[in-house]
Amino acid sequence: MKLSEVAKLIGGELTGSGEIDIINIGKIESALGNEITFIANPVYEKYFNGTAAGAVIVSKRFNPERYERLDGKKIPLIRVEDPYLAFLELLDILSPKTELQKIGIHETAVIDDTAEISDEDVRIGAHSFIGAKVKVGKRVSILPNTVILAGSEIGDDVLIYPNVTINAGTVICRKVIIHSGTVIGSDGFGQARNPDGTFQKIPQKGIVVIEEDVEIGSNCSIDRATIGKTIIHKGVKLDNQIQIAHNVEIGENTVIAAQSGIAGSTRIGKNCMIGGKVGIVGHIEICDNVILTAASNVSKSITKPGIYSGYRAQPQMMELRQEALMRNMMKKKE
Amino acid sequence: MKLSEVAKLIGGELTGSGEIDIINIGKIESALGNEITFIANPVYEKYFNGTAAGAVIVSKRFNPERYERLDGKKIPLIRVEDPYLAFLELLDILSPKTELQKIGIHETAVIDDTAEISDEDVRIGAHSFIGAKVKVGKRVSILPNTVILAGSEIGDDVLIYPNVTINAGTVICRKVIIHSGTVIGSDGFGQARNPDGTFQKIPQKGIVVIEEDVEIGSNCSIDRATIGKTIIHKGVKLDNQIQIAHNVEIGENTVIAAQSGIAGSTRIGKNCMIGGKVGIVGHIEICDNVILTAASNVSKSITKPGIYSGYRAQPQMMELRQEALMRNMMKKKE
Amino acid sequence: MKLSEVAKLIGGELTGSGEIDIINIGKIESALGNEITFIANPVYEKYFNGTAAGAVIVSKRFNPERYERLDGKKIPLIRVEDPYLAFLELLDILSPKTELQKIGIHETAVIDDTAEISDEDVRIGAHSFIGAKVKVGKRVSILPNTVILAGSEIGDDVLIYPNVTINAGTVICRKVIIHSGTVIGSDGFGQARNPDGTFQKIPQKGIVVIEEDVEIGSNCSIDRATIGKTIIHKGVKLDNQIQIAHNVEIGENTVIAAQSGIAGSTRIGKNCMIGGKVGIVGHIEICDNVILTAASNVSKSITKPGIYSGYRAQPQMMELRQEALMRNMMKKKE
Repeated sequence: MKLSEVAKLIGGELTGSGEIDIINIGKIESALGNEITFIANPVYEKYFNGTAAGAVIVSKRFNPERYERLDGKKIPLIRVEDPYLAFLELLDILSPKTELQKIGIHETAVIDDTAEISDEDVRIGAHSFIGAKVKVGKRVSILPNTVILAGSEIGDDVLIYPNVTINAGTVICRKVIIHSGTVIGSDGFGQARNPDGTFQKIPQKGIVVIEEDVEIGSNCSIDRATIGKTIIHKGVKLDNQIQIAHNVEIGENTVIAAQSGIAGSTRIGKNCMIGGKVGIVGHIEICDNVILTAASNVSKSITKPGIYSGYRAQPQMMELRQEALMRNMMKKKE
Repeated sequence: MKLSEVAKLIGGELTGSGEIDIINIGKIESALGNEITFIANPVYEKYFNGTAAGAVIVSKRFNPERYERLDGKKIPLIRVEDPYLAFLELLDILSPKTELQKIGIHETAVIDDTAEISDEDVRIGAHSFIGAKVKVGKRVSILPNTVILAGSEIGDDVLIYPNVTINAGTVICRKVIIHSGTVIGSDGFGQARNPDGTFQKIPQKGIVVIEEDVEIGSNCSIDRATIGKTIIHKGVKLDNQIQIAHNVEIGENTVIAAQSGIAGSTRIGKNCMIGGKVGIVGHIEICDNVILTAASNVSKSITKPGIYSGYRAQPQMMELRQEALMRNMMKKKE
Repeated sequence: MKLSEVAKLIGGELTGSGEIDIINIGKIESALGNEITFIANPVYEKYFNGTAAGAVIVSKRFNPERYERLDGKKIPLIRVEDPYLAFLELLDILSPKTELQKIGIHETAVIDDTAEISDEDVRIGAHSFIGAKVKVGKRVSILPNTVILAGSEIGDDVLIYPNVTINAGTVICRKVIIHSGTVIGSDGFGQARNPDGTFQKIPQKGIVVIEEDVEIGSNCSIDRATIGKTIIHKGVKLDNQIQIAHNVEIGENTVIAAQSGIAGSTRIGKNCMIGGKVGIVGHIEICDNVILTAASNVSKSITKPGIYSGYRAQPQMMELRQEALMRNMMKKKE
């Protein structure tokens, strides 16, 4: 695609020749002459001088004269309001669309007679299994070797990657994306101790509900409720290897980074940002708009929005002061 | 089911009309008029006044007069010795029994000619794989897309969910439950450093033994021994995403919460309770009856029963004193 | 095999009778009379007196007279330069070779017409899936129920266990081993916040490259790059349940123990040793030859080789001094 066309597509202002052909997007450190790159974060401006890219998308506030190139070369620029958004748009335009799964039901898929599969552009991959009374909505893609057990409902436009397990009775709403290895609706960890020290399994009879626009990473575990529902509200984004125990509820648009775990019956509010490797005990509440930094552990309810961190999470200001105190004491010893 | 019948089934004493129909069990906060709920923990008594449930199972010591309802309504009660046990019984009675897998071997399952499958009520799901010389006991359920490699033995009444991998030579005893995504018998992490900095794989030739009545959550990893056995003793209960390295031994009736990991050759005693996200280094011993609180890390053997906690686990009393000291110092600074 | 033959095979010097038959290798604590064991670490010399093994492989420096047996029995010894290497060799010789998968393509495997499969000793298991334009090299083993999506390349002598997912466009080089449940090439966790608090998915258009001689444990997650490549360089060894985010790069011969996680765009150097449950934030660099002890968390770049540890990782000497200070303060309070 000619650079002048690229500029038009992303609504930018071209400086320099629009004649070169752009075939891909690259990182500023490694882009080649037929690739375009971008600077969204000023940290990357230091690479401007040396990049081999054919063109650079920059902010309208970017001043190339401050970064004169030693080789005297003038790289064509496209100036836009928000280079990152422009990059996202272009990424979508330039990337080849890989069709992950053909329309139709693969001949090796096993579909129960009582399952209800929409006839509108559904894709069901090889060796997948759709159990009794499962409902599959329009334009759903289910990739190879995924298992959906009896009574589950899969909303329109859902995308499920290979080797996923959806246990019986799970409700997945519209436009949800689930990555490989993830298990939804396995039994909650409920064990009642007998007088002789052995344990009796507490039947796990509830379900899991995943609301619309949720994305769930690879190798996550989301347990069914003992009674009632484990709920992931709409717009929640979960990274990989996250553990969500029975009866947990996660509020709208909360994001959780990889390897975090939330114990049973805990409720997380809306718009929270939870870092990686965070642990949250059971039966507590985290209010809306809480930020938990990576590796923090929470053992009490949090009732005020703000940033919390630490091995025993506390308001970040407290944590920082405590660390400063420790450093001071170390210095006095020296 | 009439409430009077419910009372009879759980051996409780009915107060109020037994005429209403109960169709399900609900949580006290959200139960509907045709549902029954229960109060096992006094914390939930505050909900008694407002619940919309059709009836409540309570302890014989519960005094409803202290919780007079503003609406003047008298909710029928069933009084029992232990409301939680009554709830468990009822949960089992009222829940529809979902048949996870039909009796028989699904036509798409691949079973090696040399495998020995019991002919007593075995269920083997679609696209499952049973390798050479595998033995499968009576009333075993293997759900779709599960793989059991050569020489493994599956005891009577074992239940294995979809997308599980049991590697060659694994022994699974009676009444074990294994949830989806779990991998048993993969190679232990054994690598010997060569003089040039590269690593040589140490062959992992041992096996894994899972004794009877063990339950293993989703996406767990239990590695085979280098030589000898990795052993999970009877009655152990593992939550999700747990890592058990090669040659680990876990004693009877020990329970471990999600995302904990135990490094190679460590031995854990009986009746231990290990919280979530706990890390235990290799080559140590934890004696019987030890409690490790969530997120603690253990790097030395523990020889006395008790509660241990902390980033570097120590007896909980020490940990609490250390925290109190830190808080005091912070106050002095203010 | 006669003990005298064993001695010859591992190039050792026999003391005592070479007549007994050795059928297996055992641990010194539990080996039986027809098994051979070894002492590589002096810690295990205490078991020498009591072992029931038929023979023991020891170092040339081992003095059995210091460990005279109470039963007066003289156990045959094989003296070698490096008992552990001799044990590894013997392990390989004595162990029955389990053929994990027969040569050929199983009739239930689904292979796209455009895939290029080498005709030299390839093994492809039941219910596996090989997508469009996938290339599979010589002597590759793909075990049952593994999915390889479009355009991926699998180098010669690669071994992939059951229930693995390789997403589209992944490059796996020669002699790589991938254990069950692992997911390679799932989308990186890229979400851009919209003004209304919802998130917009950032397309993940890059790939994952796994260089030669890498081994990856069970239930790991390695995400594709946003643009460019997530790279695991040659000789890297990953244990189980490890999370590698988008655009991460891991240097040659670095080893990482179980349950560790590395956030997006971070670069790890060569020859690093990273313990279990370690967390490393995104967008930093760890130089070559760094050791991170188990459960440490790293939030800043590390530019000097050495040992780092702690909840907020620092040079291990600092960490130890800080702990000593804390212990002292506790004592003064007493």
